[in-house]
Amino acid sequence: MSRVRVHNFSVSLDGFAAGEGQTLEAPFGHAGTRLVEWFFRTRAFHEMQGRAGGDGGVDDALASAWGAGIGAEIMGRNKFGPQRGPWTDEEWKGWWGENPPFHTPVFVLTHHPRPSLEMEGGTVFHFVDASPQEVLKQAREAAGDLDVRIGGGPTTVRQFLAEDLVDHLHVAVVPIVLGRGERLWDGLEGLEQRFRVESVTTPGGTTHLTFTRP
Amino acid sequence: MSRVRVHNFSVSLDGFAAGEGQTLEAPFGHAGTRLVEWFFRTRAFHEMQGRAGGDGGVDDALASAWGAGIGAEIMGRNKFGPQRGPWTDEEWKGWWGENPPFHTPVFVLTHHPRPSLEMEGGTVFHFVDASPQEVLKQAREAAGDLDVRIGGGPTTVRQFLAEDLVDHLHVAVVPIVLGRGERLWDGLEGLEQRFRVESVTTPGGTTHLTFTRP
Ligand SMILES: NC(=O)c1ccc[n+]([C@@H]2O[C@H](COP(=O)([O-])OP(=O)(O)OC[C@H]3O[C@@H](n4cnc5c(N)ncnc54)[C@H](OP(=O)(O)O)[C@@H]3O)[C@@H](O)[C@H]2O)c1
Ligand SMILES: NC(=O)c1ccc[n+]([C@@H]2O[C@H](COP(=O)([O-])OP(=O)(O)OC[C@H]3O[C@@H](n4cnc5c(N)ncnc54)[C@H](OP(=O)(O)O)[C@@H]3O)[C@@H](O)[C@H]2O)c1
Repeated sequence: MSRVRVHNFSVSLDGFAAGEGQTLEAPFGHAGTRLVEWFFRTRAFHEMQGRAGGDGGVDDALASAWGAGIGAEIMGRNKFGPQRGPWTDEEWKGWWGENPPFHTPVFVLTHHPRPSLEMEGGTVFHFVDASPQEVLKQAREAAGDLDVRIGGGPTTVRQFLAEDLVDHLHVAVVPIVLGRGERLWDGLEGLEQRFRVESVTTPGGTTHLTFTRP
Repeated sequence: MSRVRVHNFSVSLDGFAAGEGQTLEAPFGHAGTRLVEWFFRTRAFHEMQGRAGGDGGVDDALASAWGAGIGAEIMGRNKFGPQRGPWTDEEWKGWWGENPPFHTPVFVLTHHPRPSLEMEGGTVFHFVDASPQEVLKQAREAAGDLDVRIGGGPTTVRQFLAEDLVDHLHVAVVPIVLGRGERLWDGLEGLEQRFRVESVTTPGGTTHLTFTRP
């Protein structure tokens, strides 16, 4: 059976995975890039953007696991874009330009479905109003034998964790106090009891945690 | 100038430093001993209790810094005991028996002062209704050239951090999701900007963070 995986999911010490006040200019709201600086520095991120360079150290070793063996992604509508409520037009095609880094079907959870969007490089955005179980069934069918990644944001990851649908969770705890935004851990009391948890801190100060099935 | 230090302060991934529902039987509420297991295993904790044994590894190296050079502690009334509101009697002398591990004056913040309590081994509990600045002044006088430790709980540590009175903060992040209780990080947005932050994860899975003055 293919696995459900979360990778490179960055949270602050106070548990926020997104800041407050997302806009077109500030995809992470008031958090700016503070949650993801460690990731931006990696070779994995540079490759994802089709650029050369980036550090190849321990953060990169952890970050680069995100892509291999993935056949579909599920993301929330706020990861896809800053719009809220009914779409006023259908111009918006995500933050990632014409050739997004997913290269698979991507299921965007939203209460406001719109026609699928076929991008360059194999990414197809499907807009789905569904429960976690239902959208996962669709994503699994699209992924074939490959795994399904839950791409975020926190509202989406939280739902899949609450329903115990996640097999592999990689969280990066960044030593900052964000103060406000969207929390990852809410409603997940005792989560660690369902997983084997390992932690490692890398020289940049980020603590990587993996939650894997025992 | 003597420093103000916090040591071995344990928080969950979701930022709780105490569980919900503290009672005489459950000093940490529903958290049980989960936040402090790493500390209970150390030689430093065994010594604190006047017992032999305990692990002497990396957790211990970090834990054992708590005592040296400390001339007074400040703690909150809920760290001192499970009582709330006016004292119904003055029998309670803290969780620690006749010879508490502090061996210095200890200033217990409370809106319900009572006469000082002289214990064995040099610990004297003073009950003070005061602002962080005011009680720190008293503790500094009592400590002479030595440092002042803020012993917790979270409500108390948070106040001293918010007023920027802490010079050294050692936090141990335990990879559990507590779900409810008292949060350490609330109201401390941007805290890391006032400190140099280092992190290290020990083999037990606990991440130690030190916040020191740059
Ligand atoms: N820290 C990280 O590593 C990381 C990773 C990815 C993203 N992010 C950040 O996270 C933020 C977005 O996260 P978020 O928690 O605000 O939102 P999100 O999870 O991206 O999206 C939530 C939205 O998706 C729709 N949705 C979710 N579940 C649904 C369901 N079961 N059925 C129908 N619609 C559903 C709803 O939108 P509608 O009701 O409006 O349709 C909901 O408001 C962004 O700032 C992004 O940059 C951070
Ligand atoms: N995680 C750790 O490492 C750690 C360390 C120590 C303790 N703990 C745990 O933390 C819990 C206690 O923490 P907590 O946050 O609930 O409470 P706390 O900080 O121990 O005590 C808070 C109480 O102290 C009094 N107080 C605080 N500041 C005051 C001020 N400026 N002036 C007057 N009174 C003041 C008030 O009591 P009154 O109004 O009732 O007088 C207030 O309700 C316990 O479960 C304990 O076991 C955890």
